[in-house]
Amino acid sequence: MIRAGMMDDIPHLTLVLGGARSGKSRHAEALIEALPAPWAYVATAQAYDDEMRARIAEHRARRSQDWLTIDAPLTLPEAIRAIPAGRPVLVDCLTLWLTNLMLAEHDIPAASRDLIEACERSTAPVVLVSNEVGLGIVPDNALARRFRDEAGRLHQNLAARAGSVIFMVAGLPMRVK
Amino acid sequence: MIRAGMMDDIPHLTLVLGGARSGKSRHAEALIEALPAPWAYVATAQAYDDEMRARIAEHRARRSQDWLTIDAPLTLPEAIRAIPAGRPVLVDCLTLWLTNLMLAEHDIPAASRDLIEACERSTAPVVLVSNEVGLGIVPDNALARRFRDEAGRLHQNLAARAGSVIFMVAGLPMRVK
Amino acid sequence: MIRAGMMDDIPHLTLVLGGARSGKSRHAEALIEALPAPWAYVATAQAYDDEMRARIAEHRARRSQDWLTIDAPLTLPEAIRAIPAGRPVLVDCLTLWLTNLMLAEHDIPAASRDLIEACERSTAPVVLVSNEVGLGIVPDNALARRFRDEAGRLHQNLAARAGSVIFMVAGLPMRVK
Repeated sequence: MIRAGMMDDIPHLTLVLGGARSGKSRHAEALIEALPAPWAYVATAQAYDDEMRARIAEHRARRSQDWLTIDAPLTLPEAIRAIPAGRPVLVDCLTLWLTNLMLAEHDIPAASRDLIEACERSTAPVVLVSNEVGLGIVPDNALARRFRDEAGRLHQNLAARAGSVIFMVAGLPMRVK
Repeated sequence: MIRAGMMDDIPHLTLVLGGARSGKSRHAEALIEALPAPWAYVATAQAYDDEMRARIAEHRARRSQDWLTIDAPLTLPEAIRAIPAGRPVLVDCLTLWLTNLMLAEHDIPAASRDLIEACERSTAPVVLVSNEVGLGIVPDNALARRFRDEAGRLHQNLAARAGSVIFMVAGLPMRVK
Repeated sequence: MIRAGMMDDIPHLTLVLGGARSGKSRHAEALIEALPAPWAYVATAQAYDDEMRARIAEHRARRSQDWLTIDAPLTLPEAIRAIPAGRPVLVDCLTLWLTNLMLAEHDIPAASRDLIEACERSTAPVVLVSNEVGLGIVPDNALARRFRDEAGRLHQNLAARAGSVIFMVAGLPMRVK
């Protein structure tokens, strides 16, 4: 798997968007695993119930020993900055990070700017995974509407800076940028 | 409409995905009707209320007499296997089939594998229609979340085997694969 | 910004679709602002609560003085017909217009035909913005389901006539047609 000179095969920042079970994580992992190991996996999930615990365990079981896993439910930019130099980074996923920030009443625009800065300063490629959540009927509750808005703004900000933006459909990547 | 040699114009398996009223059925019908008649239409809908009865009647009225319609709310793989050899097949739609399987507490992974096998053994092209349901806010109820996950997994499994995957937007096909 | 001969750079009718906060309005404004000013902005929003008032104010603040803003929550076709000849038109957005029509119990198919006719008769390019709302789980309530159906039909009718259909993802345009 390890081949010299592949570091340039993906751009510095990649955003992988898609719906539930659209193969986002798997595609992002494949992008990173095409680069020389070891790799860093930054997990934003908090296992607050059995459903989530099962999902986290499933994702973790799929990854090889070449992955260093870092949990960062809130301090994502700090976690990216702390990764050893030259190690490609996968962040899975931004929607859970945003959920955690909103529940903890953090400043979302400030956190977004901090994330962008951390990604831009990374010495190795960064792949960010996030759920597209804005293509259904307007939700009844105000918190869900605010979440859609915040997620949409975050995606736009990141997509403007990313070298590659991918929209996953049924496990297949559509290149948007 | 009937032209010899058109059997090769579409791949053996096509998956047509899209949102509500995105023109999925109409596009799938056009794909099949470009092949020589007669054609088989496998309907998975169960008319359990007036809204559904109206929708089924509207779809049926649109189709010509060259279509043989088979109802298969649960036994979709068996229905595909029973279609006379050489007859192109349209299945409309997988999301309703999945709903029926879940309500009847069938084994979804086993049913999915059976469907894939039936499609691969078909002697004529198969076009499968399904709703993309995973691009909205995470639903409140656990059954809806499980449904999104099962639908996503089914779509990924089929898309990996399909020769063509189409994502419909406003009645227009976007080629994903 | 004003350059002669750019009137032909976009087709007569453009449909910009996308999810919540996907950058639809911004992209549509950029399309129109590439044409010679002055431009007409037809707003269908009704400011019935603070959330909506804030959103309208934000959109309005972004637009320069070269925009003439016309409010048309219900009489959208009439508003388009009343725009001075040769002035490019942006309609933002069709989903709110449809909501207003449904709440006022207007005849949706008749209104849709009227809108199409008004767009076709316009002497300058028209760009229509609308939300894609059909890619989530089927909503529990019948009104929301009817809304998805009406929106999907309207988008299909317009997309069939449009010279350009764009699906926005994270602020980036994907060309569908």
